[in-house]
Amino acid sequence: MQFTHLDDEGAARMVDVTAKQPSVRQATAQGSVTCSAEVVEALRTGAVPKGDVLAVARVAGIAATKKVPDLLPLAHVIGVHGAVVDLAITDTGVEITATVRTADRTGVEMEALTAVAVAALAVVDMVKGVDRSVAITQCRITAKSGGRSGDWVRDQP
Amino acid sequence: MQFTHLDDEGAARMVDVTAKQPSVRQATAQGSVTCSAEVVEALRTGAVPKGDVLAVARVAGIAATKKVPDLLPLAHVIGVHGAVVDLAITDTGVEITATVRTADRTGVEMEALTAVAVAALAVVDMVKGVDRSVAITQCRITAKSGGRSGDWVRDQP
Amino acid sequence: MQFTHLDDEGAARMVDVTAKQPSVRQATAQGSVTCSAEVVEALRTGAVPKGDVLAVARVAGIAATKKVPDLLPLAHVIGVHGAVVDLAITDTGVEITATVRTADRTGVEMEALTAVAVAALAVVDMVKGVDRSVAITQCRITAKSGGRSGDWVRDQP
Amino acid sequence: MQFTHLDDEGAARMVDVTAKQPSVRQATAQGSVTCSAEVVEALRTGAVPKGDVLAVARVAGIAATKKVPDLLPLAHVIGVHGAVVDLAITDTGVEITATVRTADRTGVEMEALTAVAVAALAVVDMVKGVDRSVAITQCRITAKSGGRSGDWVRDQP
Amino acid sequence: MQFTHLDDEGAARMVDVTAKQPSVRQATAQGSVTCSAEVVEALRTGAVPKGDVLAVARVAGIAATKKVPDLLPLAHVIGVHGAVVDLAITDTGVEITATVRTADRTGVEMEALTAVAVAALAVVDMVKGVDRSVAITQCRITAKSGGRSGDWVRDQP
Amino acid sequence: MQFTHLDDEGAARMVDVTAKQPSVRQATAQGSVTCSAEVVEALRTGAVPKGDVLAVARVAGIAATKKVPDLLPLAHVIGVHGAVVDLAITDTGVEITATVRTADRTGVEMEALTAVAVAALAVVDMVKGVDRSVAITQCRITAKSGGRSGDWVRDQP
Repeated sequence: MQFTHLDDEGAARMVDVTAKQPSVRQATAQGSVTCSAEVVEALRTGAVPKGDVLAVARVAGIAATKKVPDLLPLAHVIGVHGAVVDLAITDTGVEITATVRTADRTGVEMEALTAVAVAALAVVDMVKGVDRSVAITQCRITAKSGGRSGDWVRDQP
Repeated sequence: MQFTHLDDEGAARMVDVTAKQPSVRQATAQGSVTCSAEVVEALRTGAVPKGDVLAVARVAGIAATKKVPDLLPLAHVIGVHGAVVDLAITDTGVEITATVRTADRTGVEMEALTAVAVAALAVVDMVKGVDRSVAITQCRITAKSGGRSGDWVRDQP
Repeated sequence: MQFTHLDDEGAARMVDVTAKQPSVRQATAQGSVTCSAEVVEALRTGAVPKGDVLAVARVAGIAATKKVPDLLPLAHVIGVHGAVVDLAITDTGVEITATVRTADRTGVEMEALTAVAVAALAVVDMVKGVDRSVAITQCRITAKSGGRSGDWVRDQP
Repeated sequence: MQFTHLDDEGAARMVDVTAKQPSVRQATAQGSVTCSAEVVEALRTGAVPKGDVLAVARVAGIAATKKVPDLLPLAHVIGVHGAVVDLAITDTGVEITATVRTADRTGVEMEALTAVAVAALAVVDMVKGVDRSVAITQCRITAKSGGRSGDWVRDQP
Repeated sequence: MQFTHLDDEGAARMVDVTAKQPSVRQATAQGSVTCSAEVVEALRTGAVPKGDVLAVARVAGIAATKKVPDLLPLAHVIGVHGAVVDLAITDTGVEITATVRTADRTGVEMEALTAVAVAALAVVDMVKGVDRSVAITQCRITAKSGGRSGDWVRDQP
Repeated sequence: MQFTHLDDEGAARMVDVTAKQPSVRQATAQGSVTCSAEVVEALRTGAVPKGDVLAVARVAGIAATKKVPDLLPLAHVIGVHGAVVDLAITDTGVEITATVRTADRTGVEMEALTAVAVAALAVVDMVKGVDRSVAITQCRITAKSGGRSGDWVRDQP
């Protein structure tokens, strides 16, 4: 087994992608924030002036797609050419889905997953004052298309 | 129920903490990356030249404690005065624990949780090429001390 | 006349504030985005799904209070301890007001003014596709309090 | 009326530009800093060791062209391939003009306008200690060329 | 003699590279950290738990290749498409070599040199507590290939 | 020998400084850029419109004092409360001196040294187009004062 980000001696490197061609690539990731029934109820009924809660998290998620080269030391600088972050209130919290598109040289799986993680952190940041049980869970890449390895969709559990 | 980050009309704001006093505060967060048995085995036995894998994730996590004001729009600029990020290989993946300390005006729960999330993203970034099942799960604040609200430890499930 | 940011030979420097004491300081700035009557009408009546427009600009403005040391080469690193950005739709566009608070060693006038300017840029970014007449105007510091130079309120024209 | 940065339900998104082709695009923006006659005189006659004042603002403006993805949540990551920022002392203050060029997938209007706004903020930062009347005004995109929508020049008032 | 980064009047600018074509370019830089024999011995024999020392510096160097547009005001935003940073312990300290690759419009000499300088700073940061004699020396670009000016290798002294 | 940035097992950490007290601290660093006699002559006589060359490097150096937490993974977030960067043209190139001051919890040696290194990189960036022999050399901390370890001045060679 060989990790692409390490050379033969185990030293970290940024993988050379100069030979890859620019092409349209897309990736989707999902994840959840779980919180108390009270917070879910408050978010749902508007008993809480929820106003910007979802907007702040959505903006944080979209902005995070552009911070991947800064957050992940071995990630490439890549053009981020489209991003959508959706937040849906569920019975157990907030479900987050992010889709990122590029016409550049590498896939954008980490951009999508980072958007989910950071949007989730933003939700936690706003909710933790009223609910310490809050947690981030099941963040994973769920689909990708384009690029050399082609299309892929995660089997849902 | 009132979210601290919203005003009465639901507009986002950065909460005023000028009246809070600088004091030593600490927070701990935990989370996991789950991956295939093959990757766990490879990480464990060194069949893989794992070299910098854990070091890269640890460094990414520590660095992330300082990026919270940039990632979370409503977070304060705060002095980060100490940070430890531990990664342990378990039967199901990698368990991450981060502890952050400050002598500043607000708690560092989000700094600890962000360290866990970003270290987890760094692990996923390195592992996803060989294991698409990889996921980030159960990221949550587990303890805090200092500050007005005092000490707290999460009940373990 | 002596500019504080220049030494006797005119070379730029970051002014030494180590002798200043931490204390609560506050600053307010205002500015406007002017746009066409059609855009104002659309923002007002909701004929446009204005949804996140104001939320995005508000978040961009709040986030910008923390980017001053990065944007202005001679600005100090300072704790930003509170920030409010308001956007009001007027007959001629959008009026933006930002108030920033700190308990640190320097004033936050530039933080407040930068919040206004960046929130305005965010509005322009969203509006310019439908209205090329859009412009940013009358951005200025309107009040400050705290610090050695004391309180001040701009005479309104 | 439909804002490009919002979906049908009003949620913010980063517009998908993967179908756009890389081509040479240019944009110019202008804006002014107005200040007291004393400051203008000082800047003009050199009674003030003005040294780096204009250089600092110019550098801040050029650097800001690269910070747009960080400042504006919905802006794309784009190659900035050329930037000129001019500052001219006028009877009422400083007139700033910025021109940005790219060979990438989207226009650079916001990059040019951001350069103007940040150069203006840098001027204010240096001048406000001696002149509290200072203000930023009339920042707007004045011309663009290249891209699908073709060339455009703002009608001067 | 004409510096490319200045116009005819000596004003700084970001050079226009929109006419340059994307092509594979590579650059290598080298530099050294000199430190005491005791530190060299400690690093070599492992008497010191050197653990992450080299890993941290390597990661800092790789990450720095992506921060050039932020560090150098006149540098372009460029795709960084591959980066390797090597650190070797010598009789007098640590020798650092960085190679950066891109398929973009400009050379990556500054990216390689910045990686060396920042990896060196990271070594100093870790070593200075036990050895104040530590210094960074002989950082220079040693080779480049690709682009209009073709291949070049520095004559070794 | 024990490196402060590593724990007993050699894992990197951000050292806990919460027990340190805020106090005025200062550090100075120096370094040189060596270049050809032709470039030195051009810089000296003004045969070259050197205009902003030194100003750009000075601004880049000052700005870099604030980027240390971003560049060095284990560095603390610290208030930078004063910074001066001087560039002097010598017979062999440019001599750079940076002095940084803080009233915060840790020393600013790395801030001063980083200012020197980044100002040097900025000089190289501007000079390398006309002189490939350019190199950065002898960057080292030369003095510090304040803090627990007291005052120190490097013995000059």
